[in-house]
Amino acid sequence: MKKENTKTNLDDQRFFDPNPFVRDIAYSLYQEVRYLPLYCPHGHIDPVLLSENAPFKNPAALFITPDHYVFRLLYSQGISLERLGIPFASGSRSEYDDKKIWELFAEYFYLFAGTPTGIWFQYELAELFGIKKKLNGDTADEIWDEIENKLRLSAFLPRTLFEKFNIAVLSTTDAATDSLEHHKNMKESKWKGKVIPTFRPDGVVKLVGKNWKENIQLLGERCGGEITSYQSFIRAMENRREYFKSLGAVATDHDIFVPYTERLSDSHADLLLQKALTGMITPSESATFESHMMMEFARMSIDDGLTMQIHPGSFRNHNVPLFDTFGPDKGADIPVLTEFTMNLRNLLNAYGNDSRLTLVLFTLDETAYSRELAPLAGHYPAMRLGPPWWFHDSIEGMLRYRRMVTETASIYNTAGFNDDTRAFLSIPARHDLSRRIDATYLADLVAKKIIDREDASHMILELTNGLVKKTYKL
Amino acid sequence: MKKENTKTNLDDQRFFDPNPFVRDIAYSLYQEVRYLPLYCPHGHIDPVLLSENAPFKNPAALFITPDHYVFRLLYSQGISLERLGIPFASGSRSEYDDKKIWELFAEYFYLFAGTPTGIWFQYELAELFGIKKKLNGDTADEIWDEIENKLRLSAFLPRTLFEKFNIAVLSTTDAATDSLEHHKNMKESKWKGKVIPTFRPDGVVKLVGKNWKENIQLLGERCGGEITSYQSFIRAMENRREYFKSLGAVATDHDIFVPYTERLSDSHADLLLQKALTGMITPSESATFESHMMMEFARMSIDDGLTMQIHPGSFRNHNVPLFDTFGPDKGADIPVLTEFTMNLRNLLNAYGNDSRLTLVLFTLDETAYSRELAPLAGHYPAMRLGPPWWFHDSIEGMLRYRRMVTETASIYNTAGFNDDTRAFLSIPARHDLSRRIDATYLADLVAKKIIDREDASHMILELTNGLVKKTYKL
Amino acid sequence: MKKENTKTNLDDQRFFDPNPFVRDIAYSLYQEVRYLPLYCPHGHIDPVLLSENAPFKNPAALFITPDHYVFRLLYSQGISLERLGIPFASGSRSEYDDKKIWELFAEYFYLFAGTPTGIWFQYELAELFGIKKKLNGDTADEIWDEIENKLRLSAFLPRTLFEKFNIAVLSTTDAATDSLEHHKNMKESKWKGKVIPTFRPDGVVKLVGKNWKENIQLLGERCGGEITSYQSFIRAMENRREYFKSLGAVATDHDIFVPYTERLSDSHADLLLQKALTGMITPSESATFESHMMMEFARMSIDDGLTMQIHPGSFRNHNVPLFDTFGPDKGADIPVLTEFTMNLRNLLNAYGNDSRLTLVLFTLDETAYSRELAPLAGHYPAMRLGPPWWFHDSIEGMLRYRRMVTETASIYNTAGFNDDTRAFLSIPARHDLSRRIDATYLADLVAKKIIDREDASHMILELTNGLVKKTYKL
Repeated sequence: MKKENTKTNLDDQRFFDPNPFVRDIAYSLYQEVRYLPLYCPHGHIDPVLLSENAPFKNPAALFITPDHYVFRLLYSQGISLERLGIPFASGSRSEYDDKKIWELFAEYFYLFAGTPTGIWFQYELAELFGIKKKLNGDTADEIWDEIENKLRLSAFLPRTLFEKFNIAVLSTTDAATDSLEHHKNMKESKWKGKVIPTFRPDGVVKLVGKNWKENIQLLGERCGGEITSYQSFIRAMENRREYFKSLGAVATDHDIFVPYTERLSDSHADLLLQKALTGMITPSESATFESHMMMEFARMSIDDGLTMQIHPGSFRNHNVPLFDTFGPDKGADIPVLTEFTMNLRNLLNAYGNDSRLTLVLFTLDETAYSRELAPLAGHYPAMRLGPPWWFHDSIEGMLRYRRMVTETASIYNTAGFNDDTRAFLSIPARHDLSRRIDATYLADLVAKKIIDREDASHMILELTNGLVKKTYKL
Repeated sequence: MKKENTKTNLDDQRFFDPNPFVRDIAYSLYQEVRYLPLYCPHGHIDPVLLSENAPFKNPAALFITPDHYVFRLLYSQGISLERLGIPFASGSRSEYDDKKIWELFAEYFYLFAGTPTGIWFQYELAELFGIKKKLNGDTADEIWDEIENKLRLSAFLPRTLFEKFNIAVLSTTDAATDSLEHHKNMKESKWKGKVIPTFRPDGVVKLVGKNWKENIQLLGERCGGEITSYQSFIRAMENRREYFKSLGAVATDHDIFVPYTERLSDSHADLLLQKALTGMITPSESATFESHMMMEFARMSIDDGLTMQIHPGSFRNHNVPLFDTFGPDKGADIPVLTEFTMNLRNLLNAYGNDSRLTLVLFTLDETAYSRELAPLAGHYPAMRLGPPWWFHDSIEGMLRYRRMVTETASIYNTAGFNDDTRAFLSIPARHDLSRRIDATYLADLVAKKIIDREDASHMILELTNGLVKKTYKL
Repeated sequence: MKKENTKTNLDDQRFFDPNPFVRDIAYSLYQEVRYLPLYCPHGHIDPVLLSENAPFKNPAALFITPDHYVFRLLYSQGISLERLGIPFASGSRSEYDDKKIWELFAEYFYLFAGTPTGIWFQYELAELFGIKKKLNGDTADEIWDEIENKLRLSAFLPRTLFEKFNIAVLSTTDAATDSLEHHKNMKESKWKGKVIPTFRPDGVVKLVGKNWKENIQLLGERCGGEITSYQSFIRAMENRREYFKSLGAVATDHDIFVPYTERLSDSHADLLLQKALTGMITPSESATFESHMMMEFARMSIDDGLTMQIHPGSFRNHNVPLFDTFGPDKGADIPVLTEFTMNLRNLLNAYGNDSRLTLVLFTLDETAYSRELAPLAGHYPAMRLGPPWWFHDSIEGMLRYRRMVTETASIYNTAGFNDDTRAFLSIPARHDLSRRIDATYLADLVAKKIIDREDASHMILELTNGLVKKTYKL
């Protein structure tokens, strides 16, 4: 975020090591990068927000209903999603009184003590809204009013915040079939903010996905020709990637449950696609097709230069009754043990020695950091290790990551920070936390004489801006 | 333990962070909960101890022979169980000279440096017996005498200690077929100490268990009718749970090697039970039955309100020659990797959204904390994560637990502390250590301004008494 | 290393906790063991180095081309092995200009900031060559000259360094079929340095290994009789072990991908060997034979007293194109998840209760430390846990190891330090780092009053010299 003179109640040296000697080093490192631009190459903001630039509605609509980080913890403590006004799959809601929802959240806000969600929220309250009170049942209404009043000001319009946040570039995540109309609008507008799409083809690659048929038909329409064969499917993928690139895309993004990779013959791949088109595909055949497509997407990335991101190991929609009522992204995606060494071997053997490819791997299984991912990233030229992801984008999570990765892979095989958020206002909070923790990590190395202060200056700059720019060619 | 004026050689600020600023915060937090009552909802004390209230025999019988935490480490260093007087499976012993056993232990006590067993033992020596010397070969006899003399005093009778320890409630662990006579005696006596049973049906649920036939017959006798069908088995389970509840039980406890859960049809379950009754059951069929019974026990817990505890992942009696000679619980239960996300899915989908259920999960596989257990506990209303268990009930183990769990699940989805011990005298030592480490953990958050001092006071109270009372409805 | 008066630019209190109170304890503990002899029971130095005692060639040949720790990281950043002069499988090289290679390394040396390789290298530069400058593109030539000049001095001959390093004993690793001529030469020479072989039979036990046929024939020749049966194979193994012992060997060393252990009947083992001799063996049959041979090697160790070392879980030569061009040991061995509890059960049940056996287990899967290895080592008398291995022989790796192992297994079931290196000059750097980190670990325990200062003195001595001497019977 840009430097301003606002005084907040947040301690300026928060989150650093309490040993004053180490804290001072951390603080000085942090100051070196504190106000640098935010590079956001991997996130989930809805582009309509910045395309339309409409004011935010109210505190509940801003902080609670769209953010599964927030309502999952409330839900775990027995507060129903109905009471929190989370929309049903049908779109309707059980509770429309947003102020009541806000009061409920305020009453239970103590639950977030010690969580990153609590930290981000406090940053937003203090740094964006200048609110110095603690949120609880007593202060709920007062804080609601303060925020609501500010949301009406032009200073709180999305584009104004984008600039105040000092965002250099913001990637959204978009289906392969997306029209990208909002991106086109922004590109054609006079607004200078750089908002770019990311190519996420899961909806057409997961042959047993819920809406696959509709997606594949839409894909055909987007590319001006029905998808009837593997050949036309591949052509459509390449075509869409070009289109995404024309609107600024620098990366692709792939969800796969087990990151197994294996090239099929074209005729085998075609057979699977035909089965899907006739509705005869099995989950195991779909997984085979996905494993093949990872190879194919790596091949395309070498051709068109898009950075390839894979994030495996999340079991989506674990809670079926909740999914049936409320749909996806409701806090019920649960990680599983994830194997990389054997699963990625075919892909890395085929493309991992080629420096034209940049392959960013994410994990929800921290045990793979030191055992598999750092050794792989510390060997294959194409591979970079993504930042601590999702549940692990936290103080302890970031420290574990650096401590388990750096000694084997060095910081230079990591990809810099991603905020990975759906919550626009949390972006500066997340980057600020990451910069503080990287400074903490490096200060510890300096204090222990593992690196010198000059190295640390170079490294904090790399961690903040250098690596992300290199990884995503920004 | 109750506040007293005894001066010991233990540093009053032990185990806190050595940074004085953090240590002071930790110490003040610790003081806020130091003398609060001990809630012990999960332990393995023999109820006869408090029912009969007979004096302890001598130091060896008190500290060594009943405690596999102690003799397993001696055994690993080549000291035979025979020399330590551990009873053979037959009940006889090779060594009956308890003083000689004590001297052997004393000589090797240095092995325990840095282990929780060493810490607990030093607490017991200092705080209970007022002994300031270090135990070793030279001091063995002197310390033996001091302890033995004290054991003859009425102040060292089990019930007197129970009161001195300030135990609010102590749960034992009891087979489903247990008569609970000692619990009945205590309830009917004038003694005010609250000692309650826990329903542990492993002996009748594991159809291939060593004494299953005897157990199932005894179960029938306890319920006034032979067990001949799945229907009568379920009725007996419900019947026994009611009986346990009538003597104060608040929880059930389940050991299962792989925590897979899946409901069978009643007729399928009956078929497996019939096979067991005719001795034709296989281990894999027994596992299927156990997976089904987890569903059934969750269902019963919703009906009768007993908190359900599952602790999977221990490979029992790994050392067959040792088991054949000495029987179970001799330190040879070894953990394995344990999967929760997929295995518990059926149970959590069926019952995990129901706040009437409290399901406490334990693990010996720490890798599941941040990957599976915290995400699950941070979502499903019914689930609570049990404290670090067994090998992990240690300083580093507790810190790893808090640091891997809190950011995702918050402290509020954890179950408070369990001492889980067979060693009565270690109870206050274990609670004291836990309180010190929780204070250490929170002090670090305060010093780093992640939480404020007021939050910390609230949280230490929750960790010490609030969460355990809520989890076990005490 | 022996105490000298050289002043270097390295901070004498480096790597200790930055809290001055803890640092002072660590430093005083370190001083107690700093100059003690180096015991090196597990390493990969080529014996020809000390047998021939020829001068080292130049800085690149010394530090870069033989050390995959160094060039793997350069390779991961897109610097080709060709440019680094790494020999092709054929033996020829693409780049013969060693000074150019050195300059390339110097330019990219910043990559090693925060890695153990960086730490070791800086120690070597400062402590061995008295160089105070930082290596980078600007200082490359100057430092090259300084090192090259010193390498011509007799003070830098391998045997002189061996003595300066204060090496008490150095084990090499040698194929079962090795003539051990260099060991014989050294034994017969007047030189007093103790260099001993280690028996590593992988080349004849892995029936599908690349050169198995040649190896088995050579084995027959070494033992004066063709290997035609399982019986003659076993006799040859015993024969070679005796020969290794006659030249001072104290240990055997075994690589196995999955550490499964199971005894076959002799006739079954013979069948597998016959299949291998006729070239009809499958990888799965070879794995079965290896699992059997683990049992047999444990049996032999009980007979002849050689300490048995197993290091499983490395997937060798993951990068096939690189392997085809450059051969093995090029930084592409990648760890996998490794299971010990079930896999080792047969071996531990058969031999683990026998104190005559010392079985040292290594792991690249740190998740096994607290879950499986510490519980096993804290129970079975025969088992010792090897030091943090390979990628984990690092500051954070060593601290994680101690913190995850000690509370369950105590320090006394660990095996002391191994340098495990191919880089002769890194030996004192590695031991020094290990001593510093052990001191750091113990100082933290002292500062927190978990152990007292007297215990710590005893323990640092055990960690430095006591345990290694006991484990390897030195």
